[in-house]
Amino acid sequence: MITREAPTHLGTMRDRNLALVLGEIARHQPVTRARLAELTGLTKTTVAAQVGVLTRLQLVEGAGPVREGGRGRPGAPLSLASGPVAGLGLEVNGHYLAACVLDMNGVVRGRAHIARNSRDRPVGETLDALVRMARRVIEEAAEAGFTVMGTTVAVPGVVDRAAGTVNAPNIGWQAVTVEALLADSLPPQPIGVRVENEANLGALGELWYGAGRGSGSYVYVSGEAGIGAGLVVDGELFRGAHGAAGEIGHVVVDPSGPSCACGGRGCVEQVAGLDAVLRAAAIESVDAGGAGHLPDATAELLRRLETGDALAAAAVEAAGSGMAVALIAAVNLLDPDTVVLGGLHALLAPWMAPHIESALSRSGGRLRGSVPTIRAAALASESAVRGGAGTVVARVLADPMVVS
Amino acid sequence: MITREAPTHLGTMRDRNLALVLGEIARHQPVTRARLAELTGLTKTTVAAQVGVLTRLQLVEGAGPVREGGRGRPGAPLSLASGPVAGLGLEVNGHYLAACVLDMNGVVRGRAHIARNSRDRPVGETLDALVRMARRVIEEAAEAGFTVMGTTVAVPGVVDRAAGTVNAPNIGWQAVTVEALLADSLPPQPIGVRVENEANLGALGELWYGAGRGSGSYVYVSGEAGIGAGLVVDGELFRGAHGAAGEIGHVVVDPSGPSCACGGRGCVEQVAGLDAVLRAAAIESVDAGGAGHLPDATAELLRRLETGDALAAAAVEAAGSGMAVALIAAVNLLDPDTVVLGGLHALLAPWMAPHIESALSRSGGRLRGSVPTIRAAALASESAVRGGAGTVVARVLADPMVVS
Repeated sequence: MITREAPTHLGTMRDRNLALVLGEIARHQPVTRARLAELTGLTKTTVAAQVGVLTRLQLVEGAGPVREGGRGRPGAPLSLASGPVAGLGLEVNGHYLAACVLDMNGVVRGRAHIARNSRDRPVGETLDALVRMARRVIEEAAEAGFTVMGTTVAVPGVVDRAAGTVNAPNIGWQAVTVEALLADSLPPQPIGVRVENEANLGALGELWYGAGRGSGSYVYVSGEAGIGAGLVVDGELFRGAHGAAGEIGHVVVDPSGPSCACGGRGCVEQVAGLDAVLRAAAIESVDAGGAGHLPDATAELLRRLETGDALAAAAVEAAGSGMAVALIAAVNLLDPDTVVLGGLHALLAPWMAPHIESALSRSGGRLRGSVPTIRAAALASESAVRGGAGTVVARVLADPMVVS
Repeated sequence: MITREAPTHLGTMRDRNLALVLGEIARHQPVTRARLAELTGLTKTTVAAQVGVLTRLQLVEGAGPVREGGRGRPGAPLSLASGPVAGLGLEVNGHYLAACVLDMNGVVRGRAHIARNSRDRPVGETLDALVRMARRVIEEAAEAGFTVMGTTVAVPGVVDRAAGTVNAPNIGWQAVTVEALLADSLPPQPIGVRVENEANLGALGELWYGAGRGSGSYVYVSGEAGIGAGLVVDGELFRGAHGAAGEIGHVVVDPSGPSCACGGRGCVEQVAGLDAVLRAAAIESVDAGGAGHLPDATAELLRRLETGDALAAAAVEAAGSGMAVALIAAVNLLDPDTVVLGGLHALLAPWMAPHIESALSRSGGRLRGSVPTIRAAALASESAVRGGAGTVVARVLADPMVVS
């Protein structure tokens, strides 16, 4: 009978109170010191001391102008500062590189997007391009008055925390030490560089800033050439025993289907991944080894769907049916309230979602009172970078002293 | 950006310290007051005060005899008391009723098991039989010096917390207000009566006292006529958005398979549920409407498997292959380190597990380094009642004042 809670050491009480006050400011801003005392159960003196520290750390500001180093007007309501503290999200995707800088309020303070096929390019070249983009975005943010405190990198693969490596077969990466390589190449940051699966970060991006807002528990499906998922439970990322939860792409939807690169047969990726959908729609300009034209080919697919092309419609219906079988598994196992379709699949949602919804209603409808809502992601190709930058903001909220 | 942590109110600090000290005693017993001060970060005076309260609550005892109401010898190591505080677990299953009393250390202090077909009997009769059994077990425990502080009832269905009802189609229950009915019929208990899905409680029972010990994240599959699952993540139960997570029985393993009572097609329950396995093995003495002979029929199936009966072997192989497809979904989505086969499926594990293991190794083996271990449940038909009684013990550990 082991509980998870760590012992409350006296030495961390100050840090706990600091995070407690900052968290209540984030939740209730603008909020007075008196209200903060009520919300936290701390004395007004303790609240005032914490607000003083948070103001010096430039994490909190009073309404109206604040004197340099001052605590603002004592009666004025407090809010999260609109700068300079900021987080950076980066993404390496099969067909683009992206970056996004967020301030403590989640406002975008810088961004970049470079169309680039990384599926058949050497790892070193891709990382060099990523570093160049990141350095430029960090410099531009600095010129605008924002200091990047940490970086989270989204990758389309499985992160092995123990080994510090990333395996991303879809872009040809095997045991790449992304964190170490980027930490060496980017300017020093107090929170450092962290790498994370792109579907996990996309799930957080949509949870905090997009289509997942208001959901406690949801499944974010990231559809590109492959298919991954990020699972959010009670507002937090669900990682599994080895950090590999959410590999929905290899749920079997047809046990007698074709064999898959994973070693299994009939995985959902093979009927609902974009490579498969485009092939079924006979859109020839792209293939698994193609020149990074997945977005162009997807645009062509959307044009054909809009003009009522029968082959395109059949391809998307088959993909929707396959996706539904995988989502029936996810819904039965995980009981989410919402399913968000992200990545390039967000574009297909108007055609795919009805097939998925009707299959979900049929299956298990008599057991559960309600079927999860299916939504398209709201942040397009920025879901993962916003989630990445957001994790840096979340880290500062949880441990404000990291920026000191 | 909302964090889940509740504000630390000053008024609850004493309760927090009490739970903190009790938790460290549970983890490190036998343990001295001096070591408790190190473990908790509290002063020796505060630890001594908490130990005094916990001793008066009869939750903690020093080595050797303790004077009535005393604190024990100050230097003596402390342990969880071996009485009188106890929790009661009850279970309504399709073919039995069960009960189990556990003390704070998880030692069984009372039990009952009554073979009884509840699949076609009126709800009221079943609940009356359950209450009679529970009252008897509570009385016997009292005679042995144990006080039942709370009761958790395992049911083979979905618990709707908002409505306070249980739907359990396999035993014909619809919107049954189990908690309210039992609370009215059992002696008053400080922690009261709580109802919970049997697979969830089975998962906790095996986690705390059985085959799940040492697992951080695992899937407990409870196989009877139907199939359910309890999911444990980082040592805690995973319930989903509406408390309906773990419905692995309705994961689709054959999209063109027969239609299921849930409204879907080709659910794993239809190929790997015991009703289906017995039908495929042509064991005629049982059917879905049969007279509660599922354990007898399972015993017959086991006899045939042991003598190499080809039809029985083929039925179990088909069940294993179907179960494997559902578990591939669970493994890809949840990334557990262990899978425990419970209920009557624990008996079939020697024949089913090899089929499941080989399918899991093939599928996804190239993506993940390791395949989860497959184990049979260790507590047989007591997994759920032990988990149920254990949740009462866990509640006392988290909030010791409930027993005051």
